Amino acid sequence: MPKQVDHEARKRRIADAVCRLAGTRGLEAVSLRHVATEAGVSMGQVQHYFATKDEMLLFAFAVISERYEQRIAAAVTSKRTPRTRLRALLLAMLPLDDAGLAEGPVLLAFLARAAVAAEIAAPLRESGAGMRAFLAEMVGSTPDAEREAVILQALVDGLLSQLLVGHIDARTAIAAVDHQLDRVC
Amino acid sequence: MPKQVDHEARKRRIADAVCRLAGTRGLEAVSLRHVATEAGVSMGQVQHYFATKDEMLLFAFAVISERYEQRIAAAVTSKRTPRTRLRALLLAMLPLDDAGLAEGPVLLAFLARAAVAAEIAAPLRESGAGMRAFLAEMVGSTPDAEREAVILQALVDGLLSQLLVGHIDARTAIAAVDHQLDRVC
Repeated sequence: MPKQVDHEARKRRIADAVCRLAGTRGLEAVSLRHVATEAGVSMGQVQHYFATKDEMLLFAFAVISERYEQRIAAAVTSKRTPRTRLRALLLAMLPLDDAGLAEGPVLLAFLARAAVAAEIAAPLRESGAGMRAFLAEMVGSTPDAEREAVILQALVDGLLSQLLVGHIDARTAIAAVDHQLDRVC
Repeated sequence: MPKQVDHEARKRRIADAVCRLAGTRGLEAVSLRHVATEAGVSMGQVQHYFATKDEMLLFAFAVISERYEQRIAAAVTSKRTPRTRLRALLLAMLPLDDAGLAEGPVLLAFLARAAVAAEIAAPLRESGAGMRAFLAEMVGSTPDAEREAVILQALVDGLLSQLLVGHIDARTAIAAVDHQLDRVC
């Protein structure tokens, strides 16, 4: 089905354009006109795939989540001990390399939008719940696993925004993760 | 100086309008026209006080920060032990009452903007550094005070966004804070 593949590729190209705009200039820059220009397609083509801005944002969020989860899964697989796996997972959630630095501002933009738009909050909650369950599983079989997962997830979320704003540097963020892991593992 | 007081009051009224718009509809809704309507002033008056949108956002951020710090200071003063004071401080940073719930989305909007606009990041870093120093002081005289403060600050930042998105409830957030305090205090 070559035609279907083409549609999917074009939708992804539009989603990539949304992410680049949101990641460099914020969600305010994500307009029909800007996205069309950035993606190199016509405004009519953008409208063909996405009836509203929120539809476009939701698809872009799904694309970025998929990539984020792939990066995290890749970071974890090569690690042997529970602690090194958990550490790799947490560090992969932080903006410490080019991919993370490009995605970070997009995630913050989605987060800010989710706080005022219920239709954006729903997929964020879902992906957050999946990640928390994964974290709890990695923390292992202690009665506090679920609570430790909540704390670790909030910790990396907070470190992510502080890194992106330049409030802390990478070394401080990594030291914070290690210090917390000393307690959990 | 009645005239000066009047100017200050009008600037604050505009800043309040910016916060209400950002807190209910996001920064995308913060346009010259919308702010003027929301504040009940003319577009010319908004432009008289603020030459650019970022100037308006910076002033609104200063107003909201001042309020936030006053709320936190008030929450802390009545507490007797170091732990109850630290706990009151951390909980006051979370969106657990009407004031916090109204401010939270505005803070997230500023945060998202700060990740792509250096002029907004600077005051956020400054206010974050002040809060971290205050936290470290409250943690007390341990060699890890600074690191514990980084972790606690990131924890509440992460819990704040998870609460606003509806990923966790208030009870879970408070339990996470208490669990972490058991380790720090």
